Amino acid sequence: MTDRVYTACLLIIGNEILSGRTQDANLPYLAKRLNELGIRLKEARVVADDEAAIVEAVNETRALYDYVFTTGGIGPTHDDITSGSVAKAFGTALERNAEAVRRLERHYPPGGLNEARLRMAEVPVGATLIDNPVSTAPGFRIGNVFVLAGVPRIMQAMFEGIAPGLVGGKPVMTRSVSCTLGEGVLAKGLGEIQARHQQVDIGSYPYYRVGGFGVSLVARGTDAGELAAVVDEIAALVTGLGATPQFDQTG
Amino acid sequence: MTDRVYTACLLIIGNEILSGRTQDANLPYLAKRLNELGIRLKEARVVADDEAAIVEAVNETRALYDYVFTTGGIGPTHDDITSGSVAKAFGTALERNAEAVRRLERHYPPGGLNEARLRMAEVPVGATLIDNPVSTAPGFRIGNVFVLAGVPRIMQAMFEGIAPGLVGGKPVMTRSVSCTLGEGVLAKGLGEIQARHQQVDIGSYPYYRVGGFGVSLVARGTDAGELAAVVDEIAALVTGLGATPQFDQTG
Repeated sequence: MTDRVYTACLLIIGNEILSGRTQDANLPYLAKRLNELGIRLKEARVVADDEAAIVEAVNETRALYDYVFTTGGIGPTHDDITSGSVAKAFGTALERNAEAVRRLERHYPPGGLNEARLRMAEVPVGATLIDNPVSTAPGFRIGNVFVLAGVPRIMQAMFEGIAPGLVGGKPVMTRSVSCTLGEGVLAKGLGEIQARHQQVDIGSYPYYRVGGFGVSLVARGTDAGELAAVVDEIAALVTGLGATPQFDQTG
Repeated sequence: MTDRVYTACLLIIGNEILSGRTQDANLPYLAKRLNELGIRLKEARVVADDEAAIVEAVNETRALYDYVFTTGGIGPTHDDITSGSVAKAFGTALERNAEAVRRLERHYPPGGLNEARLRMAEVPVGATLIDNPVSTAPGFRIGNVFVLAGVPRIMQAMFEGIAPGLVGGKPVMTRSVSCTLGEGVLAKGLGEIQARHQQVDIGSYPYYRVGGFGVSLVARGTDAGELAAVVDEIAALVTGLGATPQFDQTG
């Protein structure tokens, strides 16, 4: 466990997200799990099913972050172009992986493994398979890029298989306090608390709900003691401004 | 109405999205509305509350797309750094906008417009205000970049105010057909339909629900006649494979 900060980027690949048809559900899951593993999700991009766009996003982000995860585009249909695009980004070719073919042969009934499904056994030269315990067709890793399925249930199962092998730093913990004050009333004092605690990331998130408005003040960091100090200072700020701090269970 | 394709990118700015705390709800809304306006959302990025990251994302994307929309980070607290970062991306400074100050003065009770809230009246030199009919503090436009609030209700109200002024091409329409066949069974025929209709974008999206699995086949395009032809061909493919096509209302 070192103080080094490990970083990640998520590439959400798929026209169905960019058209508004499908709401991505993978980012929140990965963000929370990566935080627990001491890896910070620093950026995410939603990329179209377009080879040039995927190649550029993969190459730009794999140079910037420790880990790049992609979701989507590894199925058997014409719009599933992630594997070939990642191969191209790495300057390599797709090859039919013998182990992946064996797994697919066991999965489908006799005669079911047609040419389209065999495409799901193609991975870039030099890649290693990522197990898919839900529907068999594997993902893969090449370099620091992890290519996962888009369907959340499959993505999560793939991720949990690789999670024990991911190297991270100190887990990022979250504490939060909410109150019914306006952000503008809290801003000055909150900025002062942030200035005193540079290692903690303090966010202010207004909400509007049935029953009124308010603000959640969220502190994130790797040091439990400093997080507790920040929460105490925020609570004192809220109390000093005449309101009642609510201590939330999670951020 | 021309055949020119208008493009957009969305920059979702905020650590709360990257930590998994908050699920973005602005992308699906904007994607659908932009499609109706004949503007295609080609990319989205989730960017941290980090000046360098915002500057780079703004400058990279405003050169690539007709429109860039940002959401989040224009409130009164220390972590609201979108306006200053956008100013920096354009090589200009923030200035206190007199009209924005007047609006905020009318909005808050006497004495309520403190220094923190006055920050919400600061926009880059050369920017024009975007009205906020929900909570007053405006967004702004500079060049082809539109800076909107992150709270969905406010973002939507701001967007609807500017929507009539956005120039787009032909609206993108969606038709979809679902069935209970596996993607791998459909892939070959679907790819052939896609090859015959290059102006239509055909997506294949498997789903797993209570009651079974299936696949939604979604066609998007600007020509109603060609979309109808594609839907007919997909339905014939499904029927020919022994299943029953379900015609969905929307994509």
